Amino acid sequence: MKKKTTIYDIAQELNVTVSTVSRALSGFPAISDATRKAVLEVAKKLNYSPNKLASALKSGKTYIIGVIVPSVQAQFFASIIHSIEDGLKDSGYRIILYQSNESIDNEINGVKTLLEAQVDGIIASLSLETSVFEHFNEIIKQNKPLILFDRVHESLNVPTVTLDDFEAGYQATKHLIKQGYKKIAFVTTEHQIKIFDDRLKGYRSALSKHRLACAEDHVIFGDLSISAGQKGAERLMNSENTPDAIIAGDDFTALGVIKKLKEMGKTPPQIGVIGFANETFSDYITPSLSTIDQHPNKMGTACAEMFLKMIRQENPYKNTDHIVLSPTLVVRESTSNTK
Amino acid sequence: MKKKTTIYDIAQELNVTVSTVSRALSGFPAISDATRKAVLEVAKKLNYSPNKLASALKSGKTYIIGVIVPSVQAQFFASIIHSIEDGLKDSGYRIILYQSNESIDNEINGVKTLLEAQVDGIIASLSLETSVFEHFNEIIKQNKPLILFDRVHESLNVPTVTLDDFEAGYQATKHLIKQGYKKIAFVTTEHQIKIFDDRLKGYRSALSKHRLACAEDHVIFGDLSISAGQKGAERLMNSENTPDAIIAGDDFTALGVIKKLKEMGKTPPQIGVIGFANETFSDYITPSLSTIDQHPNKMGTACAEMFLKMIRQENPYKNTDHIVLSPTLVVRESTSNTK
Repeated sequence: MKKKTTIYDIAQELNVTVSTVSRALSGFPAISDATRKAVLEVAKKLNYSPNKLASALKSGKTYIIGVIVPSVQAQFFASIIHSIEDGLKDSGYRIILYQSNESIDNEINGVKTLLEAQVDGIIASLSLETSVFEHFNEIIKQNKPLILFDRVHESLNVPTVTLDDFEAGYQATKHLIKQGYKKIAFVTTEHQIKIFDDRLKGYRSALSKHRLACAEDHVIFGDLSISAGQKGAERLMNSENTPDAIIAGDDFTALGVIKKLKEMGKTPPQIGVIGFANETFSDYITPSLSTIDQHPNKMGTACAEMFLKMIRQENPYKNTDHIVLSPTLVVRESTSNTK
Repeated sequence: MKKKTTIYDIAQELNVTVSTVSRALSGFPAISDATRKAVLEVAKKLNYSPNKLASALKSGKTYIIGVIVPSVQAQFFASIIHSIEDGLKDSGYRIILYQSNESIDNEINGVKTLLEAQVDGIIASLSLETSVFEHFNEIIKQNKPLILFDRVHESLNVPTVTLDDFEAGYQATKHLIKQGYKKIAFVTTEHQIKIFDDRLKGYRSALSKHRLACAEDHVIFGDLSISAGQKGAERLMNSENTPDAIIAGDDFTALGVIKKLKEMGKTPPQIGVIGFANETFSDYITPSLSTIDQHPNKMGTACAEMFLKMIRQENPYKNTDHIVLSPTLVVRESTSNTK
């Protein structure tokens, strides 16, 4: 059977964006008469289905998706963005990005800005500061798809793509225990985001299952950054109850922990260190960093597929899917205890 | 003197975006009557100048700037984006991002997408594939500011912010010569972008000034990536004319070079290695990587200042400034020759 002509074929034939074709067909005022005429001619030439034409006339889609991330400086988010783009490649959708820089005010502005830019939907990961969620309601009200990934919150009843963060915290802790470490500390963040809470629960559960004490002064709350890692490690190693291993909330924080431990003459794996995210650098530092791979590529692909499914439904929120991916432990030198 | 009321003050008072205020004042159709009424009332209450009102009515600005970068996965571009945002913070402008992923087709789509999203201007760095430039003309035609940074091309007569790349190539080479290296190779890329050409000229000039031969088989052209670095190093070290130092086109390529050299038992600084960009990881790998700091923060700040200057002029292209920043050599272990 011959493939049906899509709005994308018309765009390719004319070397214009899908958005232009969509806007031309829907009578959007900013499109010139010449463009509109050319689009209609090609639509006719390629036997573009009148039903589809009618629906495009109604939709006025821009074929642009807005993606909001805390920061593109984390490889983890950059990789997700890359896979979302990859997953949308053949659909004619393109993405524009907005960074919240971990600020709720920026995130609110981001949603407004992207809606003003007429995006067809938004795929977002929450900032560390986000504890109110009203700003996302306008997207849902406009009947546009909203998907949350990685950092989500249950008070928004929208589809999500997440990692099993309890399992991630559990795996990291269990690995350290199996390596012989017994006094395991955790440098993390106390922001409202569910993933950090889940990881902490996984950590506590693994300790308890292996009959190890969970000392409250072994859990350090702060930001996630190289300097937060340095500060956390310093505080832990100067305390009376020094740990023999440290879990860091992300690989950047782990980098700071390692730097400080080296300065103090406690180079890992003498003190075990494990991070989260499997950032590019983690394989190249010394000692190389054990970490939990959060599968950003699978996460991005799942977001793209979910978006394409939602956009094709009259009510994008007909089913609210929650995809949960499993983490993978990556063992490197920083936890290879030889005691 | 009391500060004059700006469109930004009205936006803050109403907790809406500057774009909404601008669109409300300019009679943009998508703004509700209630919002328009609220904006006009606050404008009156805050004594917003009628002249400014008239100009806003005319402008219909969105206060959104589009930024096109090859990839946000490079820390260098992520840092520039961060500084552009920082430099625009108090102006009410916000940015949305588009990645070309080093593809000319994506870049062309990016310009179209951002213009369709009604951005007030575009700040861009060219993809490695870019050798035609017509797609940028539409921005200039719409009398919107276009600024190119880092990867620019002279055929576009627009303001630019660049590094002195000749000097960068010269400094990297001169440093290796001063460290006692004599057979210096260069793993780079042959794409049309001026910066790579300039760095190569700087390299050749430094060799010639120090009466060292520039062997043509010591210049390897390929992509810039970890795997390109591995391949380049392998080819150089397996040739008859093996170098004693390698300059890599960026820090990722240098990472690949170091990885391969370590595998071959030629761990730097035994063979000297220097990169470009001063990526975060370069201080943490073993050996730590000497590199050229390209000052992304200064570059981003200069782009933001230039944009604000251009947007305030009736003709943004009245003066076409070219800001050239000086590179800084960062010396670490990978070039500390002790022979």
